[in-house]
Amino acid sequence: MLITFEGIDGSGKSTQIELLKNRLTEAGKTVNVFREPGGTDVSELIRGMLLNPEIDIDPITEMLLFSSARSQLVAEKVLPAIDKGEIVILDRFYDSTTAYQGYGRELFDTEKITQINQLASHGKAPDITFYLKISLEDSINRTNHMSKDRMEQSGNEFFKRVISGFDELSANYDRFKIIDASKNIHDVHSEIMTHLKQLI
Amino acid sequence: MLITFEGIDGSGKSTQIELLKNRLTEAGKTVNVFREPGGTDVSELIRGMLLNPEIDIDPITEMLLFSSARSQLVAEKVLPAIDKGEIVILDRFYDSTTAYQGYGRELFDTEKITQINQLASHGKAPDITFYLKISLEDSINRTNHMSKDRMEQSGNEFFKRVISGFDELSANYDRFKIIDASKNIHDVHSEIMTHLKQLI
Repeated sequence: MLITFEGIDGSGKSTQIELLKNRLTEAGKTVNVFREPGGTDVSELIRGMLLNPEIDIDPITEMLLFSSARSQLVAEKVLPAIDKGEIVILDRFYDSTTAYQGYGRELFDTEKITQINQLASHGKAPDITFYLKISLEDSINRTNHMSKDRMEQSGNEFFKRVISGFDELSANYDRFKIIDASKNIHDVHSEIMTHLKQLI
Repeated sequence: MLITFEGIDGSGKSTQIELLKNRLTEAGKTVNVFREPGGTDVSELIRGMLLNPEIDIDPITEMLLFSSARSQLVAEKVLPAIDKGEIVILDRFYDSTTAYQGYGRELFDTEKITQINQLASHGKAPDITFYLKISLEDSINRTNHMSKDRMEQSGNEFFKRVISGFDELSANYDRFKIIDASKNIHDVHSEIMTHLKQLI
């Protein structure tokens, strides 16, 4: 099974993934967690470029680099784990490309982005996607003590477009579960578990 | 004007580009030469990954990484130079992706590759493309004293498919000029100049 988490920075993806991983592991499942971009040698090298505030990257290059990192992760880690019957949890997947590069950078139409996403994911779609939804204000309050990487330096107007991208995606695809991530950690976790139990 | 050189290793692209650059510079033109993948900070980093025989790269990732490097080169260097009325000569461009990843790695159909190529080149097509055609035997004889990078280690069957890719491309597009690169350096250069004079 492929479970993906989406949402802007500060939405609590890492915390919820950790809780979910522990819960599923206790239930006897083998669980693999990967973050995007990353998870393989090549993908981590690409991550270093994409997040480096010193490097100038054109928006189309940015989209192609995120897709390169994704392709390698899917080919090298995700598909083999799923073939063995294991669970894979991804901290971001191709919906982030639609939201950040498609809506945020205002690159192309949704159809073109969808084609690249299918290519980069080797045709593999998530079984369920948790969209941890918070407001831009909450995101800023929760992350303003951290130093910002290249993507995080893109400005408020950019992040408003990213949020509208996630909102539209989650309205259009049944696999999306919208979670109010302004709630406390344990309520969010319970809601995620309820959705997962319905799926299984 | 955008002039591209294509062909397998040992076909003499670098030598001919150097001769052409000198000739055009003597005629008062401003000439920019870039090699693919490379030519920008990001693209050279990507080149390091793509040619490193120690790194494992899935074929779709490979195609996306070549496209990422190309996109950055076009955005950062090629388009600005052409906008200033300068000449750009490229040592490989997207026809190499069609030949090496499309035909060589047997990835997808030509239409899918063409879409990615258009995206990565920001819609910019060459004005003229010189295909320096040599046989696989000549290529092996001319390069067997050199150490081989990751792409060059792909084997003879791979390179036969690459050659058939270049052959088909050059038969299908008018911008391609097929040059018999088994001839001596100065004959090849004269033939290139003859085609260029016809174009200008």
